[in-house]
Amino acid sequence: MTYNVAVVVGSIRKDSINRKMALALAAIAPASLKLEIAEIKPLSFYNQDLDAAPPQDWVDFRARIKSADAVLFVTPEYNRSVPGVLKNAIDVGSRPYGQSAWDGKPCAVISVSPGAMGGFGANHHLRQSLVFLNMPVLQQPEAYIGGGDKLIDEAGKFTNDKSRDFLQKILQSFATLIEKHAGQK
Amino acid sequence: MTYNVAVVVGSIRKDSINRKMALALAAIAPASLKLEIAEIKPLSFYNQDLDAAPPQDWVDFRARIKSADAVLFVTPEYNRSVPGVLKNAIDVGSRPYGQSAWDGKPCAVISVSPGAMGGFGANHHLRQSLVFLNMPVLQQPEAYIGGGDKLIDEAGKFTNDKSRDFLQKILQSFATLIEKHAGQK
Amino acid sequence: MTYNVAVVVGSIRKDSINRKMALALAAIAPASLKLEIAEIKPLSFYNQDLDAAPPQDWVDFRARIKSADAVLFVTPEYNRSVPGVLKNAIDVGSRPYGQSAWDGKPCAVISVSPGAMGGFGANHHLRQSLVFLNMPVLQQPEAYIGGGDKLIDEAGKFTNDKSRDFLQKILQSFATLIEKHAGQK
Amino acid sequence: MTYNVAVVVGSIRKDSINRKMALALAAIAPASLKLEIAEIKPLSFYNQDLDAAPPQDWVDFRARIKSADAVLFVTPEYNRSVPGVLKNAIDVGSRPYGQSAWDGKPCAVISVSPGAMGGFGANHHLRQSLVFLNMPVLQQPEAYIGGGDKLIDEAGKFTNDKSRDFLQKILQSFATLIEKHAGQK
Repeated sequence: MTYNVAVVVGSIRKDSINRKMALALAAIAPASLKLEIAEIKPLSFYNQDLDAAPPQDWVDFRARIKSADAVLFVTPEYNRSVPGVLKNAIDVGSRPYGQSAWDGKPCAVISVSPGAMGGFGANHHLRQSLVFLNMPVLQQPEAYIGGGDKLIDEAGKFTNDKSRDFLQKILQSFATLIEKHAGQK
Repeated sequence: MTYNVAVVVGSIRKDSINRKMALALAAIAPASLKLEIAEIKPLSFYNQDLDAAPPQDWVDFRARIKSADAVLFVTPEYNRSVPGVLKNAIDVGSRPYGQSAWDGKPCAVISVSPGAMGGFGANHHLRQSLVFLNMPVLQQPEAYIGGGDKLIDEAGKFTNDKSRDFLQKILQSFATLIEKHAGQK
Repeated sequence: MTYNVAVVVGSIRKDSINRKMALALAAIAPASLKLEIAEIKPLSFYNQDLDAAPPQDWVDFRARIKSADAVLFVTPEYNRSVPGVLKNAIDVGSRPYGQSAWDGKPCAVISVSPGAMGGFGANHHLRQSLVFLNMPVLQQPEAYIGGGDKLIDEAGKFTNDKSRDFLQKILQSFATLIEKHAGQK
Repeated sequence: MTYNVAVVVGSIRKDSINRKMALALAAIAPASLKLEIAEIKPLSFYNQDLDAAPPQDWVDFRARIKSADAVLFVTPEYNRSVPGVLKNAIDVGSRPYGQSAWDGKPCAVISVSPGAMGGFGANHHLRQSLVFLNMPVLQQPEAYIGGGDKLIDEAGKFTNDKSRDFLQKILQSFATLIEKHAGQK
């Protein structure tokens, strides 16, 4: 069985190291996982006033997430927390109240930064939201990827085997988590 | 001496209870504080690709924050954290690297929710960002305002004296913090 | 099948409302869960110097946790975080490195306070540790129990049906989580 | 003027790298700061039952903290949070309700770990408690000290000038914060 994993990337810049990481992860994922980016760039800001007649970008994004079996977050840290652009995507997907697109989807969090700390602050702030969103989340191995700007080469390959193997192990553990929750909420 | 306080409201909906709270606070602030909302609704999403030629809305917002002596955050909680729309405003104001508009501004955080918990999750996630942003922040009294949808009447007045007095005390403590940091970074 | 759940109570005072809650929960748990308190009061402070020749209280507590199928944390909030006495129990159980007694045990967190906010700060700080400890954790329903000092009567019964039903629902969801992870790490 | 700074070290093991860091910091502090360790090893666990007749170790520790002008926390991270032994010291110092020894003391947090992430999780969990404790806290520079086991040599000196200079800068910023709050609560 193959599971569709929506990859949500926490940065919208063109040469984002998180986007590169997402694509590199798709290439090394186990056969049971099909990773595809769910784009957040088209999204407008969440505003409860529009709940009754939601913009098409919200409708599309919610449908995109609902169609996935699982979600992989790959995100940088901005100001010791989740980037606003990613948090907005989470907010859009979570509403209207009682119809959250995230509900029950197994997920994993990989935070990536150029510095040594690997986005610890973003990683755990995101996890606090995942509790409310009712998303079973991969606990171990944790993924705080430092030096993220040097990990992927121009061809989109990992520059060292150790990092690639570590991330492959994470994806395998994620596959196990997804299987455990498959077909359930 | 009068200090200009930029009030940043974490919701962009029209009848936001946080916006009402911000306006009600402006009316009861001590004489030394002049509270005015710094609008975040015009802001577009932060994207590092645009740092070299920033959109006018970023330029204006950064100038607005820089012109203030202090910042008051009044925010709801979305999904146990800071709303994406507020986090984006923080991200926009913080860049480009080394030119953050927030740097050194004394601040306070008031979180407001309809429920009992008063936005605790948003309040403390925001505080984690304030460390990086180098903003001295009011510690006590903390302000987790539950039942926030019933606190302000249609005329914009507080519906009970106890809440009004508590919030007035917070603004007075905030004024003391601002004085302590005035003219300094 | 019956699962043994070690209940770890975050307060060591005699009339702790969290202890009362733990006992009241044991009485309403579904038939598949057997809740018993794993006492933390006998524990001494964790100190790495003693890893080679651990005190008997550490040995006993680690064995107690290892013998359980799952863990339920019932805790107050001290100073917006996990009580030191509970955090120490977590530290003792987690060492020596590579031999953590907590590893892989499904768990749930119920925070209880007299005030309105229901121990939100303790609840989520604890969850951050659970990531490192590799413990699958119940996401929904969340349990921030405010007014906890008025919920259990002198006979140890819930004083209102709504709270009892809500907590029973949590225990049922917890049972489902445990089944999902049974016999696995 | 000289300010007495109580240094609270978050580990009680004999060769703690945090203890070594605390002593090394005392040696490079600016002339206006006198750093001395306030020992937490003698403390017993906080238990509200004993509030009426507190153990001597609580009485002594509270008096020790009250006698200081400021507090410097130097701490490792255990299980992605504050060590239980440090959190207990905070709990003991904070009670009984209304008589907290920490109230109003300016403080700074330096987290130290052997790994790359420098105790980020402990650092920010501690900061959440500092809000409740009403302690003005140094925001910048932040101090997440990775590779902490290689920073101090056997003579107690810093092994590289860059780290020493960085930490000296932090102590200078801390001195400025203390001056700002001197003689005030």
